Amino acid sequence: MVDLLFAPEVREMLQDNDEAGMRTFCENLHPATVAAALAGEFDVGEVWRFLQHTGIKNQAVIFEYFPIDWQVKLVEGTGRQQMAKLIEQMSPDDRADLMRRLMPRVQESLLRLVDEANRRDIAQLVQYEKNTAGALMTTDYAWLPANITASEALDRLRLQAPDRETIYYIFILDEDRQLKGVVSLRDLILAPRHALIRDLLEKDAVHVHVTDDRETVAREMARFDLLAIPVIDEQGRLVGIVTHDDAIDVVVQEATEDVHRMGAVGPMTENYLETNIVTVWRKRVVWLAVLFIAEMFTFTAMAWFDDALKAVTVLALFVPLCISTGGNSGSQAATLIIRAMALGQVDIKSWFQVLRHELLMGVLLGLALGAIGVVRAYFLTPDHVLTNADGSHTDSLKLAIVIGQAVTAICIWGTLIGSMLPLVFKWRGFDPGFASSPFVATFVDVTGIVIYFLIAKSWLL
Amino acid sequence: MVDLLFAPEVREMLQDNDEAGMRTFCENLHPATVAAALAGEFDVGEVWRFLQHTGIKNQAVIFEYFPIDWQVKLVEGTGRQQMAKLIEQMSPDDRADLMRRLMPRVQESLLRLVDEANRRDIAQLVQYEKNTAGALMTTDYAWLPANITASEALDRLRLQAPDRETIYYIFILDEDRQLKGVVSLRDLILAPRHALIRDLLEKDAVHVHVTDDRETVAREMARFDLLAIPVIDEQGRLVGIVTHDDAIDVVVQEATEDVHRMGAVGPMTENYLETNIVTVWRKRVVWLAVLFIAEMFTFTAMAWFDDALKAVTVLALFVPLCISTGGNSGSQAATLIIRAMALGQVDIKSWFQVLRHELLMGVLLGLALGAIGVVRAYFLTPDHVLTNADGSHTDSLKLAIVIGQAVTAICIWGTLIGSMLPLVFKWRGFDPGFASSPFVATFVDVTGIVIYFLIAKSWLL
Repeated sequence: MVDLLFAPEVREMLQDNDEAGMRTFCENLHPATVAAALAGEFDVGEVWRFLQHTGIKNQAVIFEYFPIDWQVKLVEGTGRQQMAKLIEQMSPDDRADLMRRLMPRVQESLLRLVDEANRRDIAQLVQYEKNTAGALMTTDYAWLPANITASEALDRLRLQAPDRETIYYIFILDEDRQLKGVVSLRDLILAPRHALIRDLLEKDAVHVHVTDDRETVAREMARFDLLAIPVIDEQGRLVGIVTHDDAIDVVVQEATEDVHRMGAVGPMTENYLETNIVTVWRKRVVWLAVLFIAEMFTFTAMAWFDDALKAVTVLALFVPLCISTGGNSGSQAATLIIRAMALGQVDIKSWFQVLRHELLMGVLLGLALGAIGVVRAYFLTPDHVLTNADGSHTDSLKLAIVIGQAVTAICIWGTLIGSMLPLVFKWRGFDPGFASSPFVATFVDVTGIVIYFLIAKSWLL
Repeated sequence: MVDLLFAPEVREMLQDNDEAGMRTFCENLHPATVAAALAGEFDVGEVWRFLQHTGIKNQAVIFEYFPIDWQVKLVEGTGRQQMAKLIEQMSPDDRADLMRRLMPRVQESLLRLVDEANRRDIAQLVQYEKNTAGALMTTDYAWLPANITASEALDRLRLQAPDRETIYYIFILDEDRQLKGVVSLRDLILAPRHALIRDLLEKDAVHVHVTDDRETVAREMARFDLLAIPVIDEQGRLVGIVTHDDAIDVVVQEATEDVHRMGAVGPMTENYLETNIVTVWRKRVVWLAVLFIAEMFTFTAMAWFDDALKAVTVLALFVPLCISTGGNSGSQAATLIIRAMALGQVDIKSWFQVLRHELLMGVLLGLALGAIGVVRAYFLTPDHVLTNADGSHTDSLKLAIVIGQAVTAICIWGTLIGSMLPLVFKWRGFDPGFASSPFVATFVDVTGIVIYFLIAKSWLL
């Protein structure tokens, strides 16, 4: 997110070295706005020169709102000492993300300068694999024991409050850090002063495991309308929490990934207009080239039926229509299944239900399209294209039957392939999203040609 | 979301009429879990029979977690009197959603039974158009005046707390309900007892207008990591708030809509496996039939070049490859632009920047694919397909030049169309999402055929 609205103002303050102005700008605007204004048109040196006029704590807050690739650039553009101080102030989840992106050499030299407690925290979080709950969570959660009163709890919470990512959910732990339950701040301030936390807490709190996929985390939070979700390890100990703002970011990123995959774009998290054109080209050309090379098999398939094409020229004219039917019906089915899997409505176990559903659907869709195809081929094929190169004439009724049968068969085939491939991918351990429209469409194009010509040969040759 | 895990237990309780069991089930499990368990395999009558064993307030909470089409069915399956009582207990945003879905006759008869205050609240919310901030917001927000102390504020908040959707953000209003700022509960409990709210509040709070699109609402909340966002009317008065759980639902729903559109599926918010097959068929067949009929123009385009096809048979064999190149490059560009628009990175004003970017990109992509095409056509075209029906022979160098030029030109064309159509749609007031892959691909298929044959004719005939 870039904000050009403030660019002239920021530039002027930098030129005049207006220290008071820069401080006020950093401290009075929302940190997201400050980051967006600076990420706009300024280079790394200017950004640091601007930020140095506010305290290190506020610098860290603003820094977290820069896009991650900007954060990496900013690390490279300042002294290690300054950066280590800033890292100590960053929230645990954001700095773990940053660390994962840095080169090992930079990472190490920074870690050496960070104080012990923070170093240990970073080392713990960095180990979790990308896209897991562990990689998403923060360790700055508010927690309390169960055997104190509501009024004691509030007092202790006041001490924790300034450093915690959220204090609206308070996690209740025993001596072994086992999660006993959750108390919301709302319930806490509504409770009588002497009520015991143990009687207020909600047991069986919804939680996730540290190795769970981040999509699962976001889904559970959305399902139960949670502000934050506790993350526990194999021993049931609380190791972190994921907050609502990270959940919404996950949903947005996963949606972008899904959509991009469907449009044959490699994963691209960067801002469209701000990304280097060579980077974008590389990501785009790889997918297009792979699809292009795969699509070449359409040539091979048609070459097999060269004799049919030469004998009945009108056959060539229906090829785009027939194969696009397979591509469209396949894309449609694949889209529905992939999205239903992402929303947790369908999983591998329901494959037979899906197969039955889509087989019936394919037949119903195929008959509808086939009927349109028959009408088109019988009534609207101009006479000159029915005349073949050798002067013979193709029978338009037979042609209509071929088109009707081919469209129906290809539509059923496309629907089946589109619905089953995502499940097969998932079953073999791949992301079902890769079985998306362009992939399915290309596969069905090639096989559709074979189906079409086999039907055509049986009637017309 | 359906949960079949509890189905046997629920069925047993219903059969034994185990009142205590049903009450415990409703009151000890999370309302989302109760709704998911009941929405599984039970009919409307059974659901109501089960719910009646818990208080009306809890019934309302559970009811809100049913999918909206289930809610409508539940309304039809119970007495108006009982439903009116439940509606009085529902949260304002959820019941306004429900009301919008009911038939006017049912709506009216229910409204007549609801008490005055709630009736006025419903009437106010129902008037906002679908997909706006107004339709998403709730009127149950916590608010305070500016001229009281922190300790007074906490006392007054305790009185409001039980009924408010959230008390973690408190909205500060003057006598005219003008929004003066926001105080978080965290800041409030950290503040000295005698501090004045007016000194604690954050002025210039991020807010949205009641007519803003719901996507804007979700985007602002994600950008500023907000728990809730205030919604104001034209006079700057606070009329409601949108909370984080609604924002995440919006993001999920909008992503589903975008993905479905890309896969040529009509908007389908229902659960995949639970929806009636005829409903699904109708939504799917309409899109496929529209694309099928549009794709028929490929036949018309090819019929124009019937003479070229008869003279040079090998031309037919490259048609699927050439048009799929246009379809894929067009889908790719459209996907990137549509997603960038949804994320607020691109809007109509940047059309020229996009055009320049995509023109360059189209050339770079086209040259890469064209080069592969030349190699394929020159080296790998088998001799028998180069022989035409009249015995003449097609020159493979000329053929390679035709394929290289056509692939490059069609790729540039596809990229341009794919990137510009979403912007044109937006400009003309349509949802840019409709200019999605299948639409773009079909358009580029037809025009791609014309480009291909024009180039072929100029070299080979």
